[in-house]
Amino acid sequence: MKPLRVGIAGLGTVGASVARILSQSGFALASRCGRPLQLNAVSARSRGRDRGFPMEGVAWFDNPVALASSADIDLFVELMGGEGGPAKASVEAAIARGLPVVTANKALLAHHGVALAKAAEARGLALNFEAAVAGGIPIIKALREGLGANRISRVYGILNGTCNYILTTMEATGRSFGDVLAEAQKLGYAEADPTFDIGGMDTAHKLSLLAAVAFGHAPALDGIHVEGIERITPEDIAFADEFGFRIKLLGIATRDGRGISQRVHPAMVPHGTPLADVDGVFNAVVAEGDLVGKSVYEGRGAGAGPTASAVMADILDIARGVRLPAFGAPAATISRPEIVPLASHVGACYLRFTVIDRPGVIAVLSRCLADQSISIESMLQRSRSPGEAVPVVMITHEAREDAMVKALAAIVSTGTVMEQPCMVRIERF
Amino acid sequence: MKPLRVGIAGLGTVGASVARILSQSGFALASRCGRPLQLNAVSARSRGRDRGFPMEGVAWFDNPVALASSADIDLFVELMGGEGGPAKASVEAAIARGLPVVTANKALLAHHGVALAKAAEARGLALNFEAAVAGGIPIIKALREGLGANRISRVYGILNGTCNYILTTMEATGRSFGDVLAEAQKLGYAEADPTFDIGGMDTAHKLSLLAAVAFGHAPALDGIHVEGIERITPEDIAFADEFGFRIKLLGIATRDGRGISQRVHPAMVPHGTPLADVDGVFNAVVAEGDLVGKSVYEGRGAGAGPTASAVMADILDIARGVRLPAFGAPAATISRPEIVPLASHVGACYLRFTVIDRPGVIAVLSRCLADQSISIESMLQRSRSPGEAVPVVMITHEAREDAMVKALAAIVSTGTVMEQPCMVRIERF
Repeated sequence: MKPLRVGIAGLGTVGASVARILSQSGFALASRCGRPLQLNAVSARSRGRDRGFPMEGVAWFDNPVALASSADIDLFVELMGGEGGPAKASVEAAIARGLPVVTANKALLAHHGVALAKAAEARGLALNFEAAVAGGIPIIKALREGLGANRISRVYGILNGTCNYILTTMEATGRSFGDVLAEAQKLGYAEADPTFDIGGMDTAHKLSLLAAVAFGHAPALDGIHVEGIERITPEDIAFADEFGFRIKLLGIATRDGRGISQRVHPAMVPHGTPLADVDGVFNAVVAEGDLVGKSVYEGRGAGAGPTASAVMADILDIARGVRLPAFGAPAATISRPEIVPLASHVGACYLRFTVIDRPGVIAVLSRCLADQSISIESMLQRSRSPGEAVPVVMITHEAREDAMVKALAAIVSTGTVMEQPCMVRIERF
Repeated sequence: MKPLRVGIAGLGTVGASVARILSQSGFALASRCGRPLQLNAVSARSRGRDRGFPMEGVAWFDNPVALASSADIDLFVELMGGEGGPAKASVEAAIARGLPVVTANKALLAHHGVALAKAAEARGLALNFEAAVAGGIPIIKALREGLGANRISRVYGILNGTCNYILTTMEATGRSFGDVLAEAQKLGYAEADPTFDIGGMDTAHKLSLLAAVAFGHAPALDGIHVEGIERITPEDIAFADEFGFRIKLLGIATRDGRGISQRVHPAMVPHGTPLADVDGVFNAVVAEGDLVGKSVYEGRGAGAGPTASAVMADILDIARGVRLPAFGAPAATISRPEIVPLASHVGACYLRFTVIDRPGVIAVLSRCLADQSISIESMLQRSRSPGEAVPVVMITHEAREDAMVKALAAIVSTGTVMEQPCMVRIERF
């Protein structure tokens, strides 16, 4: 049978890994997908380096758009990254030419996914992006196909390995956020500019894609409330443990009668629940459907092997002739969802205040919360240092987000607290 | 677009649930799979009952083989169960007629899967069985497609909800196996004849299918070592906890240079590992691949909703025109694997002996183990009742299975123990 000829733009760790797999196993994989896979063309920034696969018979392109436009290939694989630029231009060129596309580019899809999917579907082409979310976990396939008959009400998870590694290490060592981040950068677990990961935007990109596939609407990145993990302290992690929780950066998307709610923020999850035990660079996703109930998917969220595993799954599907709408439903029929604002979210919270240890402080805090009908489930004021700054932490009962915001503003305006209160939402899934 | 006309044989809780989904949502699901789904024919033992879906326009067949042979359908769904009989005859009839088949019947596939897959593939037909393993967890799809480029070295999991419910309840309540089983039967969580579940054969059927799909060979049910949970006592569960383990009935399939090893038995898994926290009727599967590393899939393993979710996923794939070889590789090319005998398995063990509490007993036990080069990692002889029967429990270091069998036989032959020793393998995945 005629081989499927593959072109890869981008030969970083993932691209080089996919190229090696195609070179070494492309023929053997015919038993899995019905036809041999053949690496025919590649493009990258620098040509010189040995990347562990033979370049004989593989055409080199300096320009990825030229590769997409003119290489002898049946499938274009985009592994450069970046929301626009050459990634977008080359994917558009491949589709315009009638080639199916595989990409791991969450930023590209979160911003331009619907336009690209429309173009691909209009020409009867696949646009696959399993590797864009949760690395090696086949979660896009699970949502789009395995749970395809379910009405999904909620999908959430730990989607950023860098943040999970930092939080796990802070917990294990008691070291500060900045300290652990610096080490993670040295070890290559965090980028030189880590803003995208630790600020939550990487998780937001992935959540927008998960939600789109789960609920059958267009990705709505601008409808996501995003907070990062920068303000979490070892103290918060220790208090969380005392209250029976661990702190994780979560992406959470919920659908109800009003529309879609999407949020990314650090959250306290109870010990013993599926997400609490996901450590280090692992990712996990929970999907809740009307038929299946709760199902959990866990695995490595990044790295050459796991990401290449997902890219290869997309390539195998295309070799088999499988062609599904990118977001589950045809792109021409999907629209932007109604966004439910965070203000109406109802949930319990962990609050940490830094106060001067003197009589009456707790009364002030409690009064401001009570004024917004927020009641306190438990409180800890461990250290006693009269006249000095000490932490007071609380777990509240369920309250509306807008009430909580007002209460915290009122507390700040009393002058009782030495710094901005720390608030972490509690998620008892 | 022309609807996909579906015929269902078997209207138990799962069949009736699938029929209801098709009746209520068959048209709406066209957005997921490109064409409407339409329930056209059903067959069951008794006609009278109202099963919650309208029978207007749905043809009734008393005989499932007649339904498969002559109903106006494009797809045959077999949900009767049973290794042979009408299930096998009707699936064969459907394939002979050129209809794709969806089934949840693990016994049928474990015994006749290759023959049926060959017949289906020779006619270019799909034979899908997502619902046969792990209920609502899309694990067949994950192994065959999502991890399709991986060389899987090991796949294992908790595959029987009845056993997991019994073990979880024994642990939570300290009650005996027989007591909890009787209650589970009353609650409908265990069959009137529970042998198949508690004896491990249901898990073995599922494991044979998982291993076949993961490793790309023919299911080899007769090559599985099978033990059930009947001999586990509340004492064992309590001792396991003291040593840092929980007891779960596992199915484990491993591939190495020698071939395939498959076993089903109660196992001790360390607290904090993915399978240890899977409780009640939940199932979980772990797959280890060369690219992806370890990935974990957890969800409800039985029940009308989860099983119907899996059946519907198979139906959606057929509606989309997706057609993959049943066992990952074409049935004509797969063969029976080399079976690695359990005798060569190497692992640590928990051992419980019932002995008369008197000096010298431990020396006898230790000597018999030492004679087979088995060393003891830790030992507990908690209760002291000189002259009476007391338990002695041990955790061994790693040892070969055949050495362990010899050591236990030697211990029995000394007359030191009051009953057959209890041995539970330890799995530190």
